[in-house]
Amino acid sequence: MSSAGPPALPGSARAEKPNVGVLLRGPFQEVVRRVSVGLAEAGFDDVRPAHTAVFQHIEADGSRLTDLADRAQITKQSMGYLVDYLEQHGYVERRPDASDRRATRICLTERGWGQVRAALGIIAALEQEWTDALGQPRIDQLRELLTDVGGLTASEQS
Amino acid sequence: MSSAGPPALPGSARAEKPNVGVLLRGPFQEVVRRVSVGLAEAGFDDVRPAHTAVFQHIEADGSRLTDLADRAQITKQSMGYLVDYLEQHGYVERRPDASDRRATRICLTERGWGQVRAALGIIAALEQEWTDALGQPRIDQLRELLTDVGGLTASEQS
Repeated sequence: MSSAGPPALPGSARAEKPNVGVLLRGPFQEVVRRVSVGLAEAGFDDVRPAHTAVFQHIEADGSRLTDLADRAQITKQSMGYLVDYLEQHGYVERRPDASDRRATRICLTERGWGQVRAALGIIAALEQEWTDALGQPRIDQLRELLTDVGGLTASEQS
Repeated sequence: MSSAGPPALPGSARAEKPNVGVLLRGPFQEVVRRVSVGLAEAGFDDVRPAHTAVFQHIEADGSRLTDLADRAQITKQSMGYLVDYLEQHGYVERRPDASDRRATRICLTERGWGQVRAALGIIAALEQEWTDALGQPRIDQLRELLTDVGGLTASEQS
């Protein structure tokens, strides 16, 4: 990379024109923060943002550990730690795979489902706040643009 | 929260209309992934995404640990761990504060500046890819919408 000239000062770079990573980070971290606070208030105070990787990717009829790790783009070992923790805290359970008795599927328990419903409710409420402030057309526009950018990434990776 | 009726299935909820958290997560994680891969290729293979919290918030003339923790919204202890690691790996150094000899400022080293320049270059290249694919007007629109949503959050917190 050519980077002649004086170093770009983080402070001044931010002031001039924040990069798209910084712009995405703010709203995304607000979602994470709200979900974290809201779940704690709803009694799910033993789940951490990292566990979203499980809740977001697990299928309604359960998922294999390998598939969860692939979808979350983390190692099988890291996903194993997350799943172990959630199993110990009653959010998921391991059941034998119906199609392959030697294999195991990770399934949401009732408490796990409750957590998913609560998290989706919190995010929906936050999106409604944003919609109230900026108007539905602009939020629709944001959704469309994020979907398009996300699509670029998905197509690059496949 | 009222959640009568059958549980919202994660899979089907995603298929119908992904929530705004999921929509933000894709592009944001792509930035994180690209920066991580690009930094490793550029020889900065000992920094982790978590360290962004330091690099993003540190001021050009150094910052106090307390201020870094406040800005990153993590505990002083967590920020201390990140800074210790980066100090051991030559990215930052602690210097006495010019205005208060008992206090310490965390400052970027030459290697730290190199990392910041590399990361900014990687993000700029990714944004250029998105611009090439979607066109400058749509990326400008995305930047504007993310700035507006980010502004809501900032004003709520202040």
